[in-house]
Amino acid sequence: MRRRKLIKKAALGAVGSATAGSVVQTQTANQTADRTANQTADQTTSPNSTAKIAATQPAIEWRMATSWPEGQGITFRSAVDFCDRVAAMTDGQFIITPYASGAIAPALEVFEAVRSGEVECGHTSSLYYIDKNPALVFGTTVPFGLTPYQQYAWFYYGGGEAAMTKLHDPFDVVVFPAGSAGIQMGSWTNKEVETVADLAGLKMRITGFGAKVMQRLGVETVALAGDQIYAALEAGTVDAAEWQSPQTDEQLKLYEVAQYCYYPGWWEPGSTYKLVINQAQWQQLPKAYQSILRSAAAAANLTTLADFDAASGEALQRLVDRGVKLKPYSIEIMEAAQRTTFELLEESARTDPTFKALYDQWRQFRRQIFQWNQINELSFEQFSLQSQSASL
Amino acid sequence: MRRRKLIKKAALGAVGSATAGSVVQTQTANQTADRTANQTADQTTSPNSTAKIAATQPAIEWRMATSWPEGQGITFRSAVDFCDRVAAMTDGQFIITPYASGAIAPALEVFEAVRSGEVECGHTSSLYYIDKNPALVFGTTVPFGLTPYQQYAWFYYGGGEAAMTKLHDPFDVVVFPAGSAGIQMGSWTNKEVETVADLAGLKMRITGFGAKVMQRLGVETVALAGDQIYAALEAGTVDAAEWQSPQTDEQLKLYEVAQYCYYPGWWEPGSTYKLVINQAQWQQLPKAYQSILRSAAAAANLTTLADFDAASGEALQRLVDRGVKLKPYSIEIMEAAQRTTFELLEESARTDPTFKALYDQWRQFRRQIFQWNQINELSFEQFSLQSQSASL
Repeated sequence: MRRRKLIKKAALGAVGSATAGSVVQTQTANQTADRTANQTADQTTSPNSTAKIAATQPAIEWRMATSWPEGQGITFRSAVDFCDRVAAMTDGQFIITPYASGAIAPALEVFEAVRSGEVECGHTSSLYYIDKNPALVFGTTVPFGLTPYQQYAWFYYGGGEAAMTKLHDPFDVVVFPAGSAGIQMGSWTNKEVETVADLAGLKMRITGFGAKVMQRLGVETVALAGDQIYAALEAGTVDAAEWQSPQTDEQLKLYEVAQYCYYPGWWEPGSTYKLVINQAQWQQLPKAYQSILRSAAAAANLTTLADFDAASGEALQRLVDRGVKLKPYSIEIMEAAQRTTFELLEESARTDPTFKALYDQWRQFRRQIFQWNQINELSFEQFSLQSQSASL
Repeated sequence: MRRRKLIKKAALGAVGSATAGSVVQTQTANQTADRTANQTADQTTSPNSTAKIAATQPAIEWRMATSWPEGQGITFRSAVDFCDRVAAMTDGQFIITPYASGAIAPALEVFEAVRSGEVECGHTSSLYYIDKNPALVFGTTVPFGLTPYQQYAWFYYGGGEAAMTKLHDPFDVVVFPAGSAGIQMGSWTNKEVETVADLAGLKMRITGFGAKVMQRLGVETVALAGDQIYAALEAGTVDAAEWQSPQTDEQLKLYEVAQYCYYPGWWEPGSTYKLVINQAQWQQLPKAYQSILRSAAAAANLTTLADFDAASGEALQRLVDRGVKLKPYSIEIMEAAQRTTFELLEESARTDPTFKALYDQWRQFRRQIFQWNQINELSFEQFSLQSQSASL
């Protein structure tokens, strides 16, 4: 509750103060020593006590630029939840105020605002910045790549964290995965698409690496912001459009202007959001606050995905009730798209040694975890998620 | 590093001191006020500063009883990681020392030790305590129930947390999910099992709800600790045995005494570990520490699963290289096992209103999320995890 009040105050206070930085409260060694002495005298001890008194942690305020419009639901909520978690864990000492896209940095310039030190941290997607370094794609999602849980296994225990740290070091930022949208919904359209030939000349709203794959398959890709998609589908200036998940697609009312939804969203099987922190700011943090940011980001990885999955289950039911026709992509299209994806990855690997090192490591990890998940996850879900079992 | 030293010291100190409790350092309102005044004078301010100084958080020491032998790898490591995270986030102020099973409470009596206040908290599986209340099964894993990620969607956003809180309240404990083993491996055997008739009279090591299902299918179930399984399979006193995951099954060297491994482990599709906290101890914690425990548990949910998945990918490869034959359960067996599972759930629901309320809510959630994951997760994995795609 108090947290909400603090955010409001901070947000109001920051208006017109574009360079408001962090407030780090310093204290002398003497002050700390005095306090420690006082408290030791006062404390209960036990035979196995190893109690020691930490210095009071400093009060810090950071601003967080995000790539998300405030009304977009789960993605912005993920950033808010992260900030709330940090405030709660520090008893209101470390306050991070999240700002919607455009408020303190444009949606696609969050990375740059953090890198330059204009803001202390951001919540965004690395996919927006693959022009800075194509290997950033491994930190977000690769078409036909890792699912969210595989992505996390790679990050925490499969070499991903070290690879990502090395990749971001030259940009003077520290990054952590901080939320996933899961395997995406698919593509809305009124045009049935069954073969690769049907893709030729199709005008489709799609961005990132997925757009590159579609282009090779003959699609004319268009980059549109979320709030422009409805009008474009309605006017027929695009034939097809992908956005995110049943719940967010429903918010845009895409079901009113497109009757089919093709699945799965093979272009983004594990879209991972990123907490990006300016490196100088990170280094000034007490170790305990660094640990709190790490754990809050790990918790966000789980709870954002849980939020998407729970909301999607409900929203999909409503979409089906409204008459949306769900159609699977044909094997022909899936195979062509996968082949094209790996051609593109191989091309980057041939010309870029940094990309190649990451790609080789990632591909080896992918092969092993696919074999394992084929045995446990796929075989289980093939049986239990089928309509008859699912209706129990 | 310092953390490791603290654990060692605490563990040694606790020998012979079975009732060593928590050490809560108290401080007077005056002390806090003094400190606040000092620090405010010293701190840098800015126009939007809402800086306030929190009271120094108390030094606390807790003991954590676990159900895991120290050598078991990932499961005990999950408990250690959780405690390390809490220590790091509190700058060494809140120290929780994890003990292997048997050290301060027997493996299957962790819940009772926490409930009675003998230890402050525990890391265990609710499945061990379904005799106290059969509905506890929903908090761990139900055969043919939710996968780990579905389980978390249910807990955080599908009503699970409220249901679990209500269920545990009468036991004077607070619980949070704190790690998952994922969808389990399957069953080791030398006897080919293709039909339900083949199950009749089979002697199998299996525990929990899965054992009840197997019994109805004619299996003679045996409860054995992990370190007894190898000898039992070797001597033929059991025909089959399930344990956990490729990596932990490999540690037990089960591949030396059984040539087949049947998959998937449909009896435990999302085995979730639990952080159990004595309610009186929980209520004494400062709010910030409660938030830190919550976030550390959420982080553990993710990283433990990531640990299992990464390790399983590597271990499965080694098992296959050693000549283990992986065999899928037949549809006949899967269908009979699923039917039996839901018969057992319905029976409990008919006689137990608490169980029925939870079951109805859980089943409705399961139906919705299964429909969604059928569209996105299953359709994607059916294509991308198949051997040809997986080998890219």
